[in-house]
Amino acid sequence: MTAPRDYEIFEAGDVTLQGGAVFPRLKLAYKTFGTLNAAKDNVILYPTSFSAQHADIEWLVQRGGALDPDRYFIVIANQFSNGLSSSPSNSRDMLGAARFPAFSYYDGVAVQRRLLVERFGVTKLALVYGWSMGGMQAYHWAARHPEMVERAAVVCGSARCSPYNHVFLEGVKSALTADPAYRDGRFVAKPTAGFRAMGRVYAGWAMSHEFYREEVWREAGFTSLEDYLAGSWDTTFARRDANDLLAQIAIWQAGDISRCDEFGGDFDRALAAISAHMLLMPGRTDRYFDMRNNEDELGRLVNARSAALHAIPSIHGHRAGNPVNNAADRAFINAEISALLQR
Amino acid sequence: MTAPRDYEIFEAGDVTLQGGAVFPRLKLAYKTFGTLNAAKDNVILYPTSFSAQHADIEWLVQRGGALDPDRYFIVIANQFSNGLSSSPSNSRDMLGAARFPAFSYYDGVAVQRRLLVERFGVTKLALVYGWSMGGMQAYHWAARHPEMVERAAVVCGSARCSPYNHVFLEGVKSALTADPAYRDGRFVAKPTAGFRAMGRVYAGWAMSHEFYREEVWREAGFTSLEDYLAGSWDTTFARRDANDLLAQIAIWQAGDISRCDEFGGDFDRALAAISAHMLLMPGRTDRYFDMRNNEDELGRLVNARSAALHAIPSIHGHRAGNPVNNAADRAFINAEISALLQR
Repeated sequence: MTAPRDYEIFEAGDVTLQGGAVFPRLKLAYKTFGTLNAAKDNVILYPTSFSAQHADIEWLVQRGGALDPDRYFIVIANQFSNGLSSSPSNSRDMLGAARFPAFSYYDGVAVQRRLLVERFGVTKLALVYGWSMGGMQAYHWAARHPEMVERAAVVCGSARCSPYNHVFLEGVKSALTADPAYRDGRFVAKPTAGFRAMGRVYAGWAMSHEFYREEVWREAGFTSLEDYLAGSWDTTFARRDANDLLAQIAIWQAGDISRCDEFGGDFDRALAAISAHMLLMPGRTDRYFDMRNNEDELGRLVNARSAALHAIPSIHGHRAGNPVNNAADRAFINAEISALLQR
Repeated sequence: MTAPRDYEIFEAGDVTLQGGAVFPRLKLAYKTFGTLNAAKDNVILYPTSFSAQHADIEWLVQRGGALDPDRYFIVIANQFSNGLSSSPSNSRDMLGAARFPAFSYYDGVAVQRRLLVERFGVTKLALVYGWSMGGMQAYHWAARHPEMVERAAVVCGSARCSPYNHVFLEGVKSALTADPAYRDGRFVAKPTAGFRAMGRVYAGWAMSHEFYREEVWREAGFTSLEDYLAGSWDTTFARRDANDLLAQIAIWQAGDISRCDEFGGDFDRALAAISAHMLLMPGRTDRYFDMRNNEDELGRLVNARSAALHAIPSIHGHRAGNPVNNAADRAFINAEISALLQR
């Protein structure tokens, strides 16, 4: 007996991807919260982050919080390759012996848009909210569909994958693929050592110098640094399919709002296309989504209705943007998003 | 035919290590430059850094430079496990089936001291100069033998391995050991994927956000980021024995000047034992030897003849302290060391 499925599927049919491949019977998994109002102007789109599925991030949807289901119709879109939407792990029936093709954020945004328009008749988004890879999707939405996006909150995200972020991911990827289960470009079994290596590499990038110096992990009940690393990181990625993770990293590394026919690689032009109220909310101590990237972007949002950079004053590194067990950062984010939704 | 050996060996005999094991016929490899003067007061000790052998760091020894062989008698001490001094890779004859025991910085400093006293009759060091793990050894020297050390330059090093530094090394180690050649706690063959993973993880930590943003790698003739990573990092560690590297990481992670009977883990007391002129020279953008560690230490050097923290104003991350191809950082270091030697 399996648990009842707590999400819906949008069947997108055969979809031509940005890279040219046609993906047969493409599926987008999503979950909604709250009620779409008659004016259809209370929609918040909330795409998933790296390795996450909707269940991992839906905690932020709560009454009285930033993403309040009593007021908003909230749609969590599972990004491609996350194991619920079409992914290497669930596409064998569709692809046969063919390799899983490269997806991009543009592909994800295009299908998310079809979901909103075709299934719900939605043509305006009160807010696109995203953390990390979700924030990159929010940025892509704002640049690609300015007519639809009234507000975008980019939390520990950026308009393109910076070189340093790229190098971080090279470390993660090479640690994972050093495992003996990686053969001829794909995983043939679960990479136990690779998952552990990936987790420990991630541990140093996701959290900050101050987080470790001040032993903040004690707040979660861990009694030693090794205890924390083993308990929090060694098995973090083992919940997921390793080929799915690699496919997500590829989307992340290639992420760039200007990488499409419309903008032709002109980053300034892509940023200038954005008309939404933009809130860039980096973590002060985030290392791979470094706030300097957002600072570079801010001055180029020349056509945004408003553009602000409010860094989360946290020592929780990249995790400041997903403060599941961190009341101070959660309060900061909730207050900022509530204010954004008033604009 | 093999190349003539360009270094000497100090045969230390059977040595009881800090951890209690007796290491039979322990060998310390070293190389000297310049001439010991009659007063024996022109000695600079220069221990090696992680993965390095003397040939990798001797470029800093040059006429007119900070470490000037026309004026000083410079001794480069190869640290244990670096492949020249006693190491997992060269100790099979001595150890038989026994495992290579844990070494500490204290063990290294103790044997280096015997080399200086027994072979050269040296009882004063004008300077201990070290970068990275070499800087940690310089700190250990200053705390353990204040009567011998007149000056110490700790370049991108620290008095103990900080928690963040420890986590960085966990990532490096787990990436290396994810390789299929790692079995039952040791490498049974050369870990090709592991070396590459270790190199790519290192690439993100050794250099800075700004280094990558400004594409400083172009100065070395690389034409793309991938070209730089492949050319500079994928094979960096493959020159070395993987078991040797693991043994060095263990020394690094356990490094702490207070971890000995004399100081009993009292970090403040260990720092207060130092009487040398201390120059802490972190890299402004070094990530694992973060300058905040040196800032914490500085105020506790209460008995130092002088204590200064002069950060290298560089975007070369940890490599600012080993500026082989970087004239600006080299000039900064040379000027600082020349001034230190005048004190």
